[in-house]
Amino acid sequence: MAEEAPHVVIVGAGFAGLRVAQSLARSKARVTVVDQRNYHLFQPLLYQVAIAGLSPADIARPVRTILRDAKNIAFRLACVQDIDLDRKRLETSTGAVDYDVLVLAPGGVTNFFGLDSVEAHGLSLKDIPDAVAIKNQLLRMFELAVQEPDADRRRALLTFVVVGGGPTGVECSGALSELVRHVIAKDFPNLSLKDVRVILLEATDRLLSDMPARLRDHTAEILWKKHVEVRFGARVTHFDGSRVVLQGDEIIPAQTLIWAAGVQTAPLLKCLGAPPAPQGRVGVRPTLQLPDRDEVFVIGDAAYLEVEGRGLPMMAPVAIQQARYAARNVRALLEGRELTPFRYRDPGSLAQIGRNAAVARLGRFAFHGFLAWILWLVVHIAQLIGFRNRLIVLVNWAWDYLFYERSVGVITSHELAGDRVRQRAPDSRAKDAG
Amino acid sequence: MAEEAPHVVIVGAGFAGLRVAQSLARSKARVTVVDQRNYHLFQPLLYQVAIAGLSPADIARPVRTILRDAKNIAFRLACVQDIDLDRKRLETSTGAVDYDVLVLAPGGVTNFFGLDSVEAHGLSLKDIPDAVAIKNQLLRMFELAVQEPDADRRRALLTFVVVGGGPTGVECSGALSELVRHVIAKDFPNLSLKDVRVILLEATDRLLSDMPARLRDHTAEILWKKHVEVRFGARVTHFDGSRVVLQGDEIIPAQTLIWAAGVQTAPLLKCLGAPPAPQGRVGVRPTLQLPDRDEVFVIGDAAYLEVEGRGLPMMAPVAIQQARYAARNVRALLEGRELTPFRYRDPGSLAQIGRNAAVARLGRFAFHGFLAWILWLVVHIAQLIGFRNRLIVLVNWAWDYLFYERSVGVITSHELAGDRVRQRAPDSRAKDAG
Repeated sequence: MAEEAPHVVIVGAGFAGLRVAQSLARSKARVTVVDQRNYHLFQPLLYQVAIAGLSPADIARPVRTILRDAKNIAFRLACVQDIDLDRKRLETSTGAVDYDVLVLAPGGVTNFFGLDSVEAHGLSLKDIPDAVAIKNQLLRMFELAVQEPDADRRRALLTFVVVGGGPTGVECSGALSELVRHVIAKDFPNLSLKDVRVILLEATDRLLSDMPARLRDHTAEILWKKHVEVRFGARVTHFDGSRVVLQGDEIIPAQTLIWAAGVQTAPLLKCLGAPPAPQGRVGVRPTLQLPDRDEVFVIGDAAYLEVEGRGLPMMAPVAIQQARYAARNVRALLEGRELTPFRYRDPGSLAQIGRNAAVARLGRFAFHGFLAWILWLVVHIAQLIGFRNRLIVLVNWAWDYLFYERSVGVITSHELAGDRVRQRAPDSRAKDAG
Repeated sequence: MAEEAPHVVIVGAGFAGLRVAQSLARSKARVTVVDQRNYHLFQPLLYQVAIAGLSPADIARPVRTILRDAKNIAFRLACVQDIDLDRKRLETSTGAVDYDVLVLAPGGVTNFFGLDSVEAHGLSLKDIPDAVAIKNQLLRMFELAVQEPDADRRRALLTFVVVGGGPTGVECSGALSELVRHVIAKDFPNLSLKDVRVILLEATDRLLSDMPARLRDHTAEILWKKHVEVRFGARVTHFDGSRVVLQGDEIIPAQTLIWAAGVQTAPLLKCLGAPPAPQGRVGVRPTLQLPDRDEVFVIGDAAYLEVEGRGLPMMAPVAIQQARYAARNVRALLEGRELTPFRYRDPGSLAQIGRNAAVARLGRFAFHGFLAWILWLVVHIAQLIGFRNRLIVLVNWAWDYLFYERSVGVITSHELAGDRVRQRAPDSRAKDAG
């Protein structure tokens, strides 16, 4: 009898995990992808869902549909609860899973830096329910404001605070300011734009810290022109749902706070018992293996690896490149060949600041303006089309009916999301009260 | 000083209420539309959202966007809690609203006929959160079934019971059976189609009761060919989330029950204190006014009016035609002219039974098959396009960016929906336990 094919288990169907799976598609290994969501998310455009520019279905695709043609890959919808490295076994919400090789790519979650009040009352932007919650919050604020006779309360309803001057905060605040002004002008003629504030709070003195100084300054300038109040050295200490408190006791009356100030790795990684690395990440060897476990790889936001003395950032390009190395190294491990150390190639950086405005860094070139914006648009539309997601909804729909090409669809459950909110809320409140 | 324009308040932004508002767009009246949702829903295709054929955004549109150009119309997002007919005042969740003329078009809600266990554990199909909940339930059942080693439990996970042989139940069960078989064949190769059951339960001995006998029989035949088990004389008495109990003590192990067996009018109408009419509706004069209140009109699913001794059905065509008369009569009332009694013209009836199959009744003509299906598709796509809803998502999106044509978007909040579920659940359980 032939020996059974080795079992490669991949935790996470984000950029990193999914690419490893795809690279192993025609290998001899049995592959299982485990994720608690049934879809892969194109995260760079998530903020577009928050500002009602795209539908959730436009940027999410069922993992099963993506992996449909790979006969050696199975998908398992489950939450990983524990990892027994010695027995090579995962404990999941739907039972145990044994592995021969494990690839951990669980991605990141929002890091509130211990600010429980912000976690309880603020909004974050890591997954589709978050984005939908932000969209609904914005729309609710408009609807409440139009019925609010008290001017102070109305202004608080129309004050939108975004925290964090990284790409998410910059893109979100720029797009938000445009949206708010546009929607109010068009659908809420009884509201005054003078009552609206969009505020971007950054704790340090720089936006988009991996951009050259010239583009950083330009970004702040453009945001300001788009009526975003950019505030540097502003550190949030508390948010009770109606007032944002800053270090130094400044108080901003606002009903909406979007927290884009930090990520940390998924809590799952704590069960590895590894020595702590920044953002809760797990230190790996250059081959992306755990220091003391050859059969366990950690990649993407979960992995901590220093290159030239600096930890690699928690960003999609890093995750995508690591996935390529991890897939190659998994094959090498199974075939007894030598593993290849990871080498990072900085692909540059792109950030949109709103309509007609973006900043781009490509190798030594750094530029901004309309050209950068067109580049941003082309890159993202190209990626979304490559993602093959409903280009033409109605034509597709009629077409699907005729030719049975319909895909299974995406879970964007209000129940799942509601559960999450409900589970979190009591904890947070309890901590808050204490 | 000129006399202030009379205030016409319309409750409900469904087919009936929205059309009255649109007809009053260039009138002298001040018009306020009140609804607890911020969107108008194209309900005939709601079941397509439940089976993941369309996105919520494809069949919903913000009321403000629809009424954007009508300067005399305001929208108010609020829940109407009470009506004081003598003082001509509505009490809403965001304060009181006085009216000179009131048009009540609150639509219908699901009628569970007192079956609390079905209300607690079953799914209904009246609004977007319902449809999204059904879609998520279907996907969850597949994901659980693929991991379920016990054959009986797996079959119960893959048994989908639809209750009610009206248009919703027929369209839903037909489409569901196609979806299930298609999805399983394509994305769940490890599941066996032999474990799948889609069951349509009808309490009487006929499907689509307003169709001619020949088409009714044809409908059952087609459903059966699509692997829907059509059961007549089947009356549900209990559903605990895992077993459907029928009158006569038959038990069907199933985790999913979709209730499409009845509608009743919105609970709001109870506060009118009107004598009870079928389905909780309110009897109106032929002019669509309340018997004793000239300034209050009731239309759509909420109104009960007999034509040739039969109450008009709770259907979109009736609502749409009544809206036309109501708008004309509101104008006549304000101008002191004589009111016109409502006359119903039966436009015929169309129902899809799945891919390539539909039944149609147009005047004296009744036909079925591919031609009826093409007619159904054309009629609905034409209506959706008239509805001007994202024909080409990505092109629109890029276009919107360039030309600022983006609309505000739709609230499909998991929080709102979650709240509703949470509010209802304790009551239902309490009743259940009693």
